[in-house]
Amino acid sequence: MTTIDLNSDLAEGFGAYRCGDDEAMLSIVTSANVACGLHAGDPEIMANAFTVARERGVAVGAHPGFPDLWGFGRRRIPFSTGEIERLAAYQIGAAAALAAYAGHRITYVKPHGALGNISCEERPVADAIARAIKAVDPSLSFLATALTAQVAAGEAAGLTVRQEIFADRGYTEEGLLVSRSLPGAMITDSQEAAERVVAMVREGAIITLSGARLPTAIDSICVHGDSSHAVAMARQVRAALEKAGVRLAAFA
Amino acid sequence: MTTIDLNSDLAEGFGAYRCGDDEAMLSIVTSANVACGLHAGDPEIMANAFTVARERGVAVGAHPGFPDLWGFGRRRIPFSTGEIERLAAYQIGAAAALAAYAGHRITYVKPHGALGNISCEERPVADAIARAIKAVDPSLSFLATALTAQVAAGEAAGLTVRQEIFADRGYTEEGLLVSRSLPGAMITDSQEAAERVVAMVREGAIITLSGARLPTAIDSICVHGDSSHAVAMARQVRAALEKAGVRLAAFA
Amino acid sequence: MTTIDLNSDLAEGFGAYRCGDDEAMLSIVTSANVACGLHAGDPEIMANAFTVARERGVAVGAHPGFPDLWGFGRRRIPFSTGEIERLAAYQIGAAAALAAYAGHRITYVKPHGALGNISCEERPVADAIARAIKAVDPSLSFLATALTAQVAAGEAAGLTVRQEIFADRGYTEEGLLVSRSLPGAMITDSQEAAERVVAMVREGAIITLSGARLPTAIDSICVHGDSSHAVAMARQVRAALEKAGVRLAAFA
Amino acid sequence: MTTIDLNSDLAEGFGAYRCGDDEAMLSIVTSANVACGLHAGDPEIMANAFTVARERGVAVGAHPGFPDLWGFGRRRIPFSTGEIERLAAYQIGAAAALAAYAGHRITYVKPHGALGNISCEERPVADAIARAIKAVDPSLSFLATALTAQVAAGEAAGLTVRQEIFADRGYTEEGLLVSRSLPGAMITDSQEAAERVVAMVREGAIITLSGARLPTAIDSICVHGDSSHAVAMARQVRAALEKAGVRLAAFA
Repeated sequence: MTTIDLNSDLAEGFGAYRCGDDEAMLSIVTSANVACGLHAGDPEIMANAFTVARERGVAVGAHPGFPDLWGFGRRRIPFSTGEIERLAAYQIGAAAALAAYAGHRITYVKPHGALGNISCEERPVADAIARAIKAVDPSLSFLATALTAQVAAGEAAGLTVRQEIFADRGYTEEGLLVSRSLPGAMITDSQEAAERVVAMVREGAIITLSGARLPTAIDSICVHGDSSHAVAMARQVRAALEKAGVRLAAFA
Repeated sequence: MTTIDLNSDLAEGFGAYRCGDDEAMLSIVTSANVACGLHAGDPEIMANAFTVARERGVAVGAHPGFPDLWGFGRRRIPFSTGEIERLAAYQIGAAAALAAYAGHRITYVKPHGALGNISCEERPVADAIARAIKAVDPSLSFLATALTAQVAAGEAAGLTVRQEIFADRGYTEEGLLVSRSLPGAMITDSQEAAERVVAMVREGAIITLSGARLPTAIDSICVHGDSSHAVAMARQVRAALEKAGVRLAAFA
Repeated sequence: MTTIDLNSDLAEGFGAYRCGDDEAMLSIVTSANVACGLHAGDPEIMANAFTVARERGVAVGAHPGFPDLWGFGRRRIPFSTGEIERLAAYQIGAAAALAAYAGHRITYVKPHGALGNISCEERPVADAIARAIKAVDPSLSFLATALTAQVAAGEAAGLTVRQEIFADRGYTEEGLLVSRSLPGAMITDSQEAAERVVAMVREGAIITLSGARLPTAIDSICVHGDSSHAVAMARQVRAALEKAGVRLAAFA
Repeated sequence: MTTIDLNSDLAEGFGAYRCGDDEAMLSIVTSANVACGLHAGDPEIMANAFTVARERGVAVGAHPGFPDLWGFGRRRIPFSTGEIERLAAYQIGAAAALAAYAGHRITYVKPHGALGNISCEERPVADAIARAIKAVDPSLSFLATALTAQVAAGEAAGLTVRQEIFADRGYTEEGLLVSRSLPGAMITDSQEAAERVVAMVREGAIITLSGARLPTAIDSICVHGDSSHAVAMARQVRAALEKAGVRLAAFA
């Protein structure tokens, strides 16, 4: 029986602002990527997410991003790899502490937004994140986007690497996400997304726009939770996996 | 032979801004209180302070403050004790991670500015900080202002408590710092400060404005490093203690 | 025929965060209080609000607050009156510029959150805001909470003062808002709120919890728009005023 | 008799942080570029700079930058031209208001750091800044780096354009600043800088590394004030110009 993890970005509000429905998602996913305060999240929101995740048996990881609340961590700010290393370490430590405060424990790290994208494309940036993880706690897994520089960097650093695919994003023939400005970037139909996820898990491969198969380990599925539609899609993806006989459980 | 610690606030710059002469102070003190990014400090400055401290054998602690870069953590912002607990935990974790990244290890926590002042005066706030320390890492000491609510809170939480006195501040008959707006608040003469510190350490007591003695454990002396005058005073305090036969060493 | 203004706080998002339904509210109100970037709002959100307000013939004002995005401007941060004066001037200028950029023009200032509350209670703080308005543009009106220190301060400074009442808040016998922690603070029934507003406008008086009448000029009604319920209440208040023969128009 | 302006970036501190010696520079320059709070500067520091400038008869301009306090506005953050337009408008308005508050009046705009560099290189970004200036107050001059896209953008927008050269930076054969990572980028000898400035003003041309002359209008000389050495150089540049019979006066 195949076992797979279902992860989502959480704790992405700030102060009075809310983003997504953390409560709902924590009933669906098996791992929660918790924002660390620099692109989103604050100690209140983080501690609350860790507490609810603990209560529901959901695994938690640090989800560090660029210090860019205004841009939600999506702007490609030119930081050096050294700066990225230290930015990541700072955030991993803050998340680990608040998880401990909430009686939980982070078990992995997944970079957010522009930091995630750049570290998929550029090996030195992926190496910087891997070094930060290793320096802070080498027992943490690197939750990496399948088939990207993140995977190689994590492995080279001796970290446990887990690979994820996206439920609602189209893939190019090279296995990269189709740019949001191009057709096929987003899969908006929940049924279609759910079926495709089941197919990818079954075949152990990313399915590209043309229908080609790119074999990869698949340890986790990333679903979004930032709208009621997204929550519904996450539910449908989970249900389809269970119906297909896949067991859902945190990788860590 | 008496042994005592000499501590100072460091890493208080931000981005391109510098505050004080960290390099100079790390040659004088035995413990460095490292700002954690919310009232001052950023990952670059913090990592650098931890690295230099490690190289020079200086102990390091987290120096958390209110999220108030504009006010340098000196404004009494009305946070609840729960918020303070989580703010403190966040910062302790971030500092611990960057210390690990730099090959060092934090061994204590000392609250900064308004957070420090309020937790000296109000036991519930001191308790909140003690709970944060305990939740993140119960092996960390609480570096407390002598004779304040911080001491009782740390002890009640089962933490190791170390008590500090200030080299350049006058004390009231109750053992509180004289308000900066009143005469006698600041001791600006290095010679006078150095002699007074030696006397307080010898007698195991705070000396008040009137000359009264308030007995207390004295584990550490706090010196400032935010001006060239302050650095000179720190040097003189250290020299006077050594001349008096006191051994300088980190408490932790 | 009585004419009255209907105002609401808008542009209270930040970056990717949204707060309330600006589009909906700009079809209901006659004046929009636009956040200025320090407690909420950013140049994108502000410029958009000014543009839509211009298109719909809605008057606009600056809605300055404390520099406290984390606390949404609701924390009573201890600023001096001088600091408040300059904080307010900064924000009024920023709002005026973005309104001009959008082809619109601000005609009034209304302080937000804790800055609003403190300036209702403390005359020196209200004076500071009045001085800021006067220094930046003395033709701007001061949109003041009826019967508070804001009114006296605005008049003493020679500004045009407009007085507002709240559609959904209970009033004490002294004409202050009932604290949110006490019963009667919030009027949650739209029908009740609408009827009470019509009664207060007709009688030219605030109606207290006990039913007493406190006579006051009423130039504007403040409605909220931060939830779908709030938007519905705003619509009902407007409809009830129109049905009662009150003409809705910006005061400025 | 030639008349020329001497400008410098000021008000670049933040909260408790100081950057450069504003007091000293306001006795040397004829125009002060005042930071607007997003990359540096806060309302206190800005209002103080405007006040001292007014007292000393120094002209003032807005010096807008990217919202990047951490990076001091030097990071090339990928903003769209629309975002840049609104960021600039926001800051120009804030500066204009605080200048009015201080009894002074801004007369020009000069973009800072990365915003300045990108708008020298990319005409659409320069156009965005020109549009912001024009929308907020078309009587404001655009203080542009000589021979760059800023000049053409300001002129195309119908703004008064003033061109500046740098006292302490080397120029390439194309009239661009030599990159800081290359030899010849910085002129550190005050005497050399002063003599070169006089030569450029006399000849109405930028002098390149090879000694070539690139004719240009020169309305202003930019000097730095962020160190005691920089202040001394600014003084020497001013003295050399006066000795050469050049009259120093604000262009606006």
